[in-house]
Amino acid sequence: MNGSADPRVSAYDRGLHFGDGLFETIACVGGRPRFLTLHLERLARGCSRLSIAVPNLDELREEVSSLARDVDRAIVKLLLSRGTAVGRGYVVTGREKATRITIRYAWADEDPAWLHDGVRVRTAELRMGENPALAGIKHCNRLEQILARHECTDPGISEALLFSSSGRLVSGTMSNVFVVHGSRLCTPRLDLCGVEGVMRRVVLREARRAGIAVDECVLGAQDLETADELFLTNARIGIWPVRSLDERPMSPGPVTRLLQQVMAPLLEEPADA
Amino acid sequence: MNGSADPRVSAYDRGLHFGDGLFETIACVGGRPRFLTLHLERLARGCSRLSIAVPNLDELREEVSSLARDVDRAIVKLLLSRGTAVGRGYVVTGREKATRITIRYAWADEDPAWLHDGVRVRTAELRMGENPALAGIKHCNRLEQILARHECTDPGISEALLFSSSGRLVSGTMSNVFVVHGSRLCTPRLDLCGVEGVMRRVVLREARRAGIAVDECVLGAQDLETADELFLTNARIGIWPVRSLDERPMSPGPVTRLLQQVMAPLLEEPADA
Repeated sequence: MNGSADPRVSAYDRGLHFGDGLFETIACVGGRPRFLTLHLERLARGCSRLSIAVPNLDELREEVSSLARDVDRAIVKLLLSRGTAVGRGYVVTGREKATRITIRYAWADEDPAWLHDGVRVRTAELRMGENPALAGIKHCNRLEQILARHECTDPGISEALLFSSSGRLVSGTMSNVFVVHGSRLCTPRLDLCGVEGVMRRVVLREARRAGIAVDECVLGAQDLETADELFLTNARIGIWPVRSLDERPMSPGPVTRLLQQVMAPLLEEPADA
Repeated sequence: MNGSADPRVSAYDRGLHFGDGLFETIACVGGRPRFLTLHLERLARGCSRLSIAVPNLDELREEVSSLARDVDRAIVKLLLSRGTAVGRGYVVTGREKATRITIRYAWADEDPAWLHDGVRVRTAELRMGENPALAGIKHCNRLEQILARHECTDPGISEALLFSSSGRLVSGTMSNVFVVHGSRLCTPRLDLCGVEGVMRRVVLREARRAGIAVDECVLGAQDLETADELFLTNARIGIWPVRSLDERPMSPGPVTRLLQQVMAPLLEEPADA
């Protein structure tokens, strides 16, 4: 924490009181953090949106890299709160000093078949609130995701898809979603809610490089119903094909497979792209 | 914290990572917490909504009361997070053990004229997301309030009023709002967003007892524009008349004055109603 090994924070931290902070969940493979530059860029965007002073990114880069160095696979979570409160209440004085926490977790051991055969997904009943001021960034106000994740405890269901209050498709609770119609790839525009995932960004880039027509779109329930393929992305999982949505069977199709193939080297041999 | 005097929490606390918790801000006057039963009831409602085990309320009552006992005026903040994470990610295992924090703060010394002459208020540009799953309870996802509060740093402006994404009037950043048209009193219905304040509840009750026609309504911008009187409530301030809204002058009127008069004894001599 803040460079020291103390695993405790002040009971006055604004992260604890208000979720007043940001985080990044960084997959580390072969001793190197994956897409670290993209993670730090998003963190900096979040800081600017929340008026938290951007920390020294070189220092953060070194801290995350050193946690990754001696392990084959791990997750490093980087949490940056606005820091200990100066006074009571919501007011930001500008004199807060951000609290920085880096934690290394073991890699989650999911069924490796999920990558190939796909995962089972359901639609959450909870609908996300829409707020452009908080959309896109990975802030620490995550009760919506927690409640949506909590709706269903079936361990065979890997993820829940979320719509927003006005009926737009947004994302999963911990992943972004891509929808394929024919040869056209779409992912929800995240201007009202949702997190712009690092893997989402990489997939958008790699899809364009591979000549796939791809767009950020406004998508509704019907676009899900008529989808030919569906897949999920996040920094750790890469690409998970969806093999059923609310009990409707789906098949990982050619667009998903092509992208998995294109992405594989980037995921296994991080070059910090 | 959890009954001990240690002012630090685990860096793994879900409150810190996700704002996964609830809080109460309890005004203490003359050695007694004000409306403590109502605060504990709301906390219990929040627990039930978020699937956090309801703590021992007698123990909390005693803890808050003992912090209030030897001071004339103070604020006690009671914060209850879901506790240290069991594993990584949003999943609630049910094995989390809630973290309980009580903090005593000095009473804020605002200009006493605000109670009599009223406060200057503006409309926030930020619009709140709408989510019935989180509406009403006092949870720790408060970035919207922080950003709205941060829009304007003029110390002469005491509060900002918030609308929701669909244009409904909701509340202030740290207060509830009441609107008077003629002799009719309205406060926004809080089924889509906002916090059901303890003082709001007391005012609704006391207004009915005093024979004032009062309702929880859907209100829009026009209802503000045509309001004869406007006032704000929260657990600490009681009732603040509004004397200007976005530079439009307003006068504390008869309904506001009557309610201030009716409420005064309840605020000054807490009987734990």
